[in-house]
Amino acid sequence: MSISAEADEGKNADNTKVSISMGDFKFKEILGEDAARKVAFVLLDAVNDCSNQAVLIVEKTPFPVNEEDWNTIVSNCSLKIVSTNDIYSNLTLFPPEKFAGIKTTLINPCTEKHILKYRDQKRYVIHETWDDYKSITLPYLEEHQFTLKWIFNLLEHKAEVDRVIFDDPDRQNGFVLALDIKWDGKNLANLYVLAIIRRKGIKSIRRPVY
Amino acid sequence: MSISAEADEGKNADNTKVSISMGDFKFKEILGEDAARKVAFVLLDAVNDCSNQAVLIVEKTPFPVNEEDWNTIVSNCSLKIVSTNDIYSNLTLFPPEKFAGIKTTLINPCTEKHILKYRDQKRYVIHETWDDYKSITLPYLEEHQFTLKWIFNLLEHKAEVDRVIFDDPDRQNGFVLALDIKWDGKNLANLYVLAIIRRKGIKSIRRPVY
Repeated sequence: MSISAEADEGKNADNTKVSISMGDFKFKEILGEDAARKVAFVLLDAVNDCSNQAVLIVEKTPFPVNEEDWNTIVSNCSLKIVSTNDIYSNLTLFPPEKFAGIKTTLINPCTEKHILKYRDQKRYVIHETWDDYKSITLPYLEEHQFTLKWIFNLLEHKAEVDRVIFDDPDRQNGFVLALDIKWDGKNLANLYVLAIIRRKGIKSIRRPVY
Repeated sequence: MSISAEADEGKNADNTKVSISMGDFKFKEILGEDAARKVAFVLLDAVNDCSNQAVLIVEKTPFPVNEEDWNTIVSNCSLKIVSTNDIYSNLTLFPPEKFAGIKTTLINPCTEKHILKYRDQKRYVIHETWDDYKSITLPYLEEHQFTLKWIFNLLEHKAEVDRVIFDDPDRQNGFVLALDIKWDGKNLANLYVLAIIRRKGIKSIRRPVY
């Protein structure tokens, strides 16, 4: 229901989407989840357009590691006691809103390929020969690859400009180093960056084994 | 600051602690944390009594796996847009309060042994002979073991009565099967139960290797 788009249009030049309303969507299916890591991949249907789907990736954030944040949590939380036994109390703690945010990625509109990527599936380790790569893997990659528009947006400074850490513009050996959206932007223990090379057409950096 | 003790005194007969106020404590030290699993072990000092310490164990809860909960989250959350690039939006999602609770265990008063247990430490794998067990491990266990009061509370139905799943009262072979406080009480993928035997004095069930 809530709509509160605060995207900085100057920095996020990809203006096709300046406001997002989760109320436009309804639940369709859990594609996958990891209870230990507190991650879930959820398929959503648009309420008014059954051809429009979205993948919602949610991941709880790590706890802060500094004194100031912890004192804010301790002094501003509310508690619900679940059970008590001797010196051990089992509680549900409701943190101040600042610490209640969930790191979320919305992919919309998403394609069948996105749905397949996030749906739980059996995984295999295989030995691949150079001939296998040429005759099986490469044609598959070329047929099934995702749109690279977000990569070109980043390389051409059309989006995520404020997330770039380093930029070497050389067309042969240059690359852009940027904060990945996997990172929550706060906890250094969790820092996740992405290096994207400027040279085009490279599909694999595996060393062929003959 | 908030005090909202809702312990059911009938079910949690260990009435020495019927209300808990986090405002009585302040941050002292992060003993350990795991950013991937969203867990932290925090040492707290009582504000008015420097000899009174507590260990706070916090762990974010897994996401729900049913349609109703997800539709509540989707229709009642608020959003903050962090960045947008093509079809990918990076957001912070604030869930309804029902889904914002953090599973928490408070150990108070805690001892130096609790602090040591939860403080990050180097871990080793060792080969232990029967003589090592008798001359090193067993004396250490006997000297350093935690108070077992919470276990006897559970075996004697003085606490956590509503968490017991199965109870065989035989003194030699009986045991109590109960929900562990590690479980968030909701997600079956995360279910964690504890079997506590009624026979006393067993310190180890390892098979000695001669």
